Amino acid sequence: MMGAMSQTITSPASVVPEPDPQLLQRAASVRQAAMALGQCSDAERRAAVEAMATALEAASEEILEANRADLAAAAADGLASALVARLKLDGLKLAGAIAGVRQVAALADPLGRRQLHTELDEGLVLERVTVPLGVVGVIFEARPDAVMQIASLAVRAGNGALLKGGREAGRSCRAIVAALHRGLAGTTVAPGCLELLTSREESLGLLRLDGLVDLIIPRGSNALVRFIQDNTRIPVLGHADGICHLYVDRAAEPAQALRIAIDSKTQYPAACNAIETLLLHREVASIFLAEAIPAFTAAGVELRGDPVACALGVSHAAGPGAWDTEYSDLILNVKVVADLEEALEHVRRHGSRHTDAIATTDPVAADRFLRAVDSAGVFLNCSTRFADGNRYGFGAEVGISTQTLPPRGPVGLEGLVTYRYRLRGEGHVVADYADGSRRFRHRSLPL
Amino acid sequence: MMGAMSQTITSPASVVPEPDPQLLQRAASVRQAAMALGQCSDAERRAAVEAMATALEAASEEILEANRADLAAAAADGLASALVARLKLDGLKLAGAIAGVRQVAALADPLGRRQLHTELDEGLVLERVTVPLGVVGVIFEARPDAVMQIASLAVRAGNGALLKGGREAGRSCRAIVAALHRGLAGTTVAPGCLELLTSREESLGLLRLDGLVDLIIPRGSNALVRFIQDNTRIPVLGHADGICHLYVDRAAEPAQALRIAIDSKTQYPAACNAIETLLLHREVASIFLAEAIPAFTAAGVELRGDPVACALGVSHAAGPGAWDTEYSDLILNVKVVADLEEALEHVRRHGSRHTDAIATTDPVAADRFLRAVDSAGVFLNCSTRFADGNRYGFGAEVGISTQTLPPRGPVGLEGLVTYRYRLRGEGHVVADYADGSRRFRHRSLPL
Repeated sequence: MMGAMSQTITSPASVVPEPDPQLLQRAASVRQAAMALGQCSDAERRAAVEAMATALEAASEEILEANRADLAAAAADGLASALVARLKLDGLKLAGAIAGVRQVAALADPLGRRQLHTELDEGLVLERVTVPLGVVGVIFEARPDAVMQIASLAVRAGNGALLKGGREAGRSCRAIVAALHRGLAGTTVAPGCLELLTSREESLGLLRLDGLVDLIIPRGSNALVRFIQDNTRIPVLGHADGICHLYVDRAAEPAQALRIAIDSKTQYPAACNAIETLLLHREVASIFLAEAIPAFTAAGVELRGDPVACALGVSHAAGPGAWDTEYSDLILNVKVVADLEEALEHVRRHGSRHTDAIATTDPVAADRFLRAVDSAGVFLNCSTRFADGNRYGFGAEVGISTQTLPPRGPVGLEGLVTYRYRLRGEGHVVADYADGSRRFRHRSLPL
Repeated sequence: MMGAMSQTITSPASVVPEPDPQLLQRAASVRQAAMALGQCSDAERRAAVEAMATALEAASEEILEANRADLAAAAADGLASALVARLKLDGLKLAGAIAGVRQVAALADPLGRRQLHTELDEGLVLERVTVPLGVVGVIFEARPDAVMQIASLAVRAGNGALLKGGREAGRSCRAIVAALHRGLAGTTVAPGCLELLTSREESLGLLRLDGLVDLIIPRGSNALVRFIQDNTRIPVLGHADGICHLYVDRAAEPAQALRIAIDSKTQYPAACNAIETLLLHREVASIFLAEAIPAFTAAGVELRGDPVACALGVSHAAGPGAWDTEYSDLILNVKVVADLEEALEHVRRHGSRHTDAIATTDPVAADRFLRAVDSAGVFLNCSTRFADGNRYGFGAEVGISTQTLPPRGPVGLEGLVTYRYRLRGEGHVVADYADGSRRFRHRSLPL
């Protein structure tokens, strides 16, 4: 029995130390401020986010200065260039981030929406209404712009946030959060709903704040996400891998399929929704590759093929593990398959259920693919790079989730919202229904 | 940085051993059968669940016989009487469970519902459609009737299930699953979508089947739920604690409030939605307790009071930890509070965010309570025992969740369903939007 297990096996959460009393105190303060924020009206929360944007504008020079200091320290530490690129804020990037905050202010209120309304019996009415999650814990690597985005989404949806940026972005994050606090100080929303964590101990402690933190959003590497998932009881919104596929069907229009393939790989190769593997129906592989090999070479992409693809001119062989590798780089696997079913089987075995696409003009093949592929995004005749909250029309993105349960795929404001059941009665008790003296009606009422 | 953490700290999941190859093979078979089931039509899934009910009827004598053997073994092992009660199936209970399976067959199809429909641009159309989760892992303590309920919900929603009953219910579970398999054999749904796990090693291995299992549903003790939450990366639907409150406001109607209090405690004291603590506004405490003390005594309930409640006649003092204890028994804490705000603070500190109720005739107090209490269910003038999927009108219940994220509270079929984004284009690529040659429209289309 499991009961015995729980006594004989060490609780794994114990590898992460208990949060220290000071962190508990700070988190409790954020939670208290968040509870008050959750009671604020739509107009109050909207005004608060606008004030955050205005304060960021006023502090632009200070934020850029802090960022320059972070960059100088990063250079001295020999930080990897990809990290430096994400760390860097310039005037244009900062202005873009501030515009993003204003867009979040303008989003429709996600709170107070009635999702269900049922008369259980005369005088006993149930409703389900959206409410804030409470407090979110956000752990970023580098990217100071993400602090502005997530903080604005959190406040718009009535939530507090504990924000932990990478150490290399410390000065930038402090300057940004100081500005956000100044902005909130002039509103009905308490600045204490946003709190910056700075030390490694604090970010470990954050993982143990169940009861005070309702959701953890990691924005960083696969290793970061997995570590967090393994070390907390708090739900985690994130994705560990993005192994996306494009299948070029027998009935694909080759030029269109190639255009989609190039975009899906090269438009931003480091993104999780870029493809890692191209699957080619054997009847089109030869024609397709004749155009694709020079096109990908021109785009700087190294193709790595299975034996059939190599026989058709792909110059590198796909090594062991290739089908399970997220390159995040200008490298693309190519595999020739016998038919759609083999392609589906490959995606099932090697995909990460993120986003997979088919290029075809055959409606039967399209329908089969769209129904059978078990990923958050399943696309027909378009680039996998469209898998993104902004492109989907969500206004801003909390993150992308490859877990199966909702929220799944690109997650907008609704990822920061939950619901509550409210039941209003007139002295109703369950005993009356158990003994048959009353019966439920379960009549749907207008939403 | 977290990156370093993930290398220096042992992955906690490693305390649970890797699943053995045979379990992996069985789980993969269930997943394959589940993928085929997910493609079945509403009518096919409905017919399959009806066939499951018919087969259970045909096997009733065999199931009851197996259950008698389990009960005999339990008696020989000296199993606790509460467990024996949950283990026991008689003709009436079995018939009720089979009727429940037929009700599940009759529920509206949860699949294929379009939740979002947006034209991103001309010829580029996004939709979000409900789809099955995939495979659920269910871990029961004792209760063989839960096997029938969850198996029918899983199949109705297009999911496979790995079912692990308690060892003490082994014969009953085997007889039930054999009947379910016979029922499915005559339908288009492969019997292999349901698989019974029997050993302790298998249930530990189940926790490591991420990628093959999408959701774990534990139906058992708090210790079981916590152990599972701590030892798996797979999402867990469940609740660890049910510490529910009833606050009797200054403006409560005393007789009605008492009736609600009695029902909330005694209608089924072992249920998670029974109250553990009664909070009394000091202005009504004396009048209320004058009636309540004899009424609770007559109902066999032991009251345990804070000093003020004891001074008003409550005979036992609430010991240390009382406010944080789920008795699951005929014991009820009583605390006198100065006002609504103190009651809210008590619920915030000691509640488990399950279900909390207020008894009042004051609309301002009611509104404050319904808005401020951060629980899955917040009730006015009715019993907390209404927090239940059947009573809410969901037809059947997967479980009750006290996590903050949806699905929250009593969870019906929708807890076994997720969604998928489908995007259909005509060769659309992201580069065209990045360079400004095309712009998104984001026009809502009819659902």
